[in-house]
Amino acid sequence: MLISIRDIYQNPEELSKLEKIKVSGWVKTFSHKKKFIKINDGSTLDDLQIVISQNNFFQADLLKKINFASSLSVKGKLVLTSEREQPCELKEVEIEFVNSAEESYPLQKQNIPLKTVRDYPHLRTKTYYFLTLFRLRHSISKSIHDFFHQQGFYYVPTPIITSNDTEGAGETFNITTDEEEPFFSKPVKLTVSGQLQAEALAQGLGKVYTFSPCFRAEKSHTTRHLAEFWMVEPEMVFADLGEITDLAEKMVKYVINYILDNNGTELKKIENYDEENKKEIINELKNIVISEFERIDYTRAIEILKEKKENFVFNDIKWGMDLQSEHEKYLCQHFDNSPIFITDYPAGLKAFYMKNNPDEKTVACFDLLFPEIGELIGGSVREDNYNILQEKARKTGLDINNLSWYFDLRKYGYAPSAGFGLGLERLIMFISGTENIRDTIAFPRLHSKLSY
Amino acid sequence: MLISIRDIYQNPEELSKLEKIKVSGWVKTFSHKKKFIKINDGSTLDDLQIVISQNNFFQADLLKKINFASSLSVKGKLVLTSEREQPCELKEVEIEFVNSAEESYPLQKQNIPLKTVRDYPHLRTKTYYFLTLFRLRHSISKSIHDFFHQQGFYYVPTPIITSNDTEGAGETFNITTDEEEPFFSKPVKLTVSGQLQAEALAQGLGKVYTFSPCFRAEKSHTTRHLAEFWMVEPEMVFADLGEITDLAEKMVKYVINYILDNNGTELKKIENYDEENKKEIINELKNIVISEFERIDYTRAIEILKEKKENFVFNDIKWGMDLQSEHEKYLCQHFDNSPIFITDYPAGLKAFYMKNNPDEKTVACFDLLFPEIGELIGGSVREDNYNILQEKARKTGLDINNLSWYFDLRKYGYAPSAGFGLGLERLIMFISGTENIRDTIAFPRLHSKLSY
Repeated sequence: MLISIRDIYQNPEELSKLEKIKVSGWVKTFSHKKKFIKINDGSTLDDLQIVISQNNFFQADLLKKINFASSLSVKGKLVLTSEREQPCELKEVEIEFVNSAEESYPLQKQNIPLKTVRDYPHLRTKTYYFLTLFRLRHSISKSIHDFFHQQGFYYVPTPIITSNDTEGAGETFNITTDEEEPFFSKPVKLTVSGQLQAEALAQGLGKVYTFSPCFRAEKSHTTRHLAEFWMVEPEMVFADLGEITDLAEKMVKYVINYILDNNGTELKKIENYDEENKKEIINELKNIVISEFERIDYTRAIEILKEKKENFVFNDIKWGMDLQSEHEKYLCQHFDNSPIFITDYPAGLKAFYMKNNPDEKTVACFDLLFPEIGELIGGSVREDNYNILQEKARKTGLDINNLSWYFDLRKYGYAPSAGFGLGLERLIMFISGTENIRDTIAFPRLHSKLSY
Repeated sequence: MLISIRDIYQNPEELSKLEKIKVSGWVKTFSHKKKFIKINDGSTLDDLQIVISQNNFFQADLLKKINFASSLSVKGKLVLTSEREQPCELKEVEIEFVNSAEESYPLQKQNIPLKTVRDYPHLRTKTYYFLTLFRLRHSISKSIHDFFHQQGFYYVPTPIITSNDTEGAGETFNITTDEEEPFFSKPVKLTVSGQLQAEALAQGLGKVYTFSPCFRAEKSHTTRHLAEFWMVEPEMVFADLGEITDLAEKMVKYVINYILDNNGTELKKIENYDEENKKEIINELKNIVISEFERIDYTRAIEILKEKKENFVFNDIKWGMDLQSEHEKYLCQHFDNSPIFITDYPAGLKAFYMKNNPDEKTVACFDLLFPEIGELIGGSVREDNYNILQEKARKTGLDINNLSWYFDLRKYGYAPSAGFGLGLERLIMFISGTENIRDTIAFPRLHSKLSY
């Protein structure tokens, strides 16, 4: 019976009663003469210590093969060691399997600079740092699914291949085949957002969300952009701006609480990863779940910024301008370094599908800004008026005919609808205190670079 | 307070104590003079009856706007009606909002032929049939995530944009931009499977699974093929063929049990959808969870087929041939119409990455065949020998250089690994008794057709 190291640490007493258990993993460290070998199997960040004894003398050939990063299977007796840091270790072992790592293994040393590890995406899970990040990514994803399920939302698949461009931003990937004739009878692209289709599904299912890859052909080389990333896009009918911001706040807090409850080990690992530059993550997350996210409108935000204009590089603060990263950071600071919702931006700054406010200058939308990282979530109430919607799409330069199905939703018993988009990797960055977005996804896709 | 119809039916007694509740949804039916109106809000298949009274006389304008498929918000008093089929209805109502459906609404009638509904993917969730299917899809997806989480697997993101072709089958979509220079410095495609990258991640995380869209540019117009579909691909290290088939059996049974426990209403709806052609789904599913899936090897399967060769159109039964759909169906019948695993196929029929058996003729793989629908899952132990693996890839015609990272996994402490791929839509088809795969996904992508 193969037992995981997580199983062992969850239940050492029970398992120590068994005559022998089988454990497998990769060698992380070993002492001189390999008397003590620590292995990790990915099930937890904690390693298991294996004690090699005189009895393994007859296994000299296998013992010799054991080296750093080699894989290993052993049978042994689990012995409680309550006097020491780890609650147990494996003794009386019999080595069953060893596969050495060749000398060319590029991640030989512990604590290799991240910059180097990034060059080997296919080997990254062999390092504690990425084990930690991917365990967090798993938990964050799981808690998002749990949250929406509990709130009565349906998980829906929106298409990756589409002829629609939600944002009209133009930076899209085309899809073709080797044949001349278009496979789908018209030009198609990789989706930038599942929102338009999610809106259609919500007009019958009521509350839906997507959890899906999205794509932007941006030639950006910042630490915050990926060409391929995952978006979570809930959409709910009969909801207004108040309800949709409440949903966003509730979701973020649910996820953070889940991580605090289930991934303390991972958070501590990241806090202490760089000994010379320790991070404070757990307290920051705890502060967020107890804070109430302030809601201010764009017009008020501009007023606040005007009062402090001398602080900014971009200091020509006026109504109608796009908020720069320095402004967003300041606004969070202004409100106790807590996340804040900025609502009702000028229509000209936002997408065509957002509902016009009665003032005819702003739209019923929000950005949720987080301290340090800026925009985490953007959302809006959707324009419900067929003519206004079509006119706004036309002005954006979108192909009106291609979107006729989307406008038509407004004709057939349309229920007012609102939703938002969360960039999953941005949330992982925030929760894990990761500076570079490419560390939050297994095989990051970036301009001019792709090997896997 | 907006309350869902599901909330109401889960707790009618409590909610009937409130003075007024607010309910919203779409009009499904109404009686003469609109005295009784039934609405559905997508939260359940059950409609809620709203009783219009003399008191609504002053709301004549709003009442007039109510028509089939219109959206509607009302406030009213929930009244228990234990003497009738539905446990409650909404009385003393005040209509707050109505949005009519225009006359051109293409799904006016109830029970429109599926063929017609399929022409309007953006309106499909307004029909009970698709409400039912998408509720099932949600539950199936949820239970898959739950299952793997409980089994200690990590949900990992494998790339959609890739330069690797897992199967070497060639029917792939290319990705380009409007610029001449390749965005990623080399030609890239839409993935056909996340397996190769999942294998890499498992070499550190131990147990992983993907839940991700995959793509095939097949010009197939059958009821079983999509150009864009979702795959679930678990991969676990230190597992052999026995363990990976056990995992597949356990997963299928877990999902079916979840559906039987949570979606009885939906299953009954589908059983009775076509009154002249009722289906038997629930009993069939119950039989599957209590059956033990037989495991036979390909060689034995050929022997069984040989004995019955007179039954087949393709009756030149011999070792080395690919099993036809008629053969797969017969094999399931032969074993009490239960799902069966066929293992150890001839190497020539299977992908390059499958591990050679000691007989040097077959590979350590399996197909899980389901009665009627055929292959639901395919999996294997992965070839662990660097040289054999590379040679097999070369023979398949794959670009060896592009895959060097994949071969290299075998060099650095490789742990023996096995996994499988489940086509999500095929599983939904089976569980929901759906004949056409394009009904199981919200915006199906098929050759020569795409409008959304």
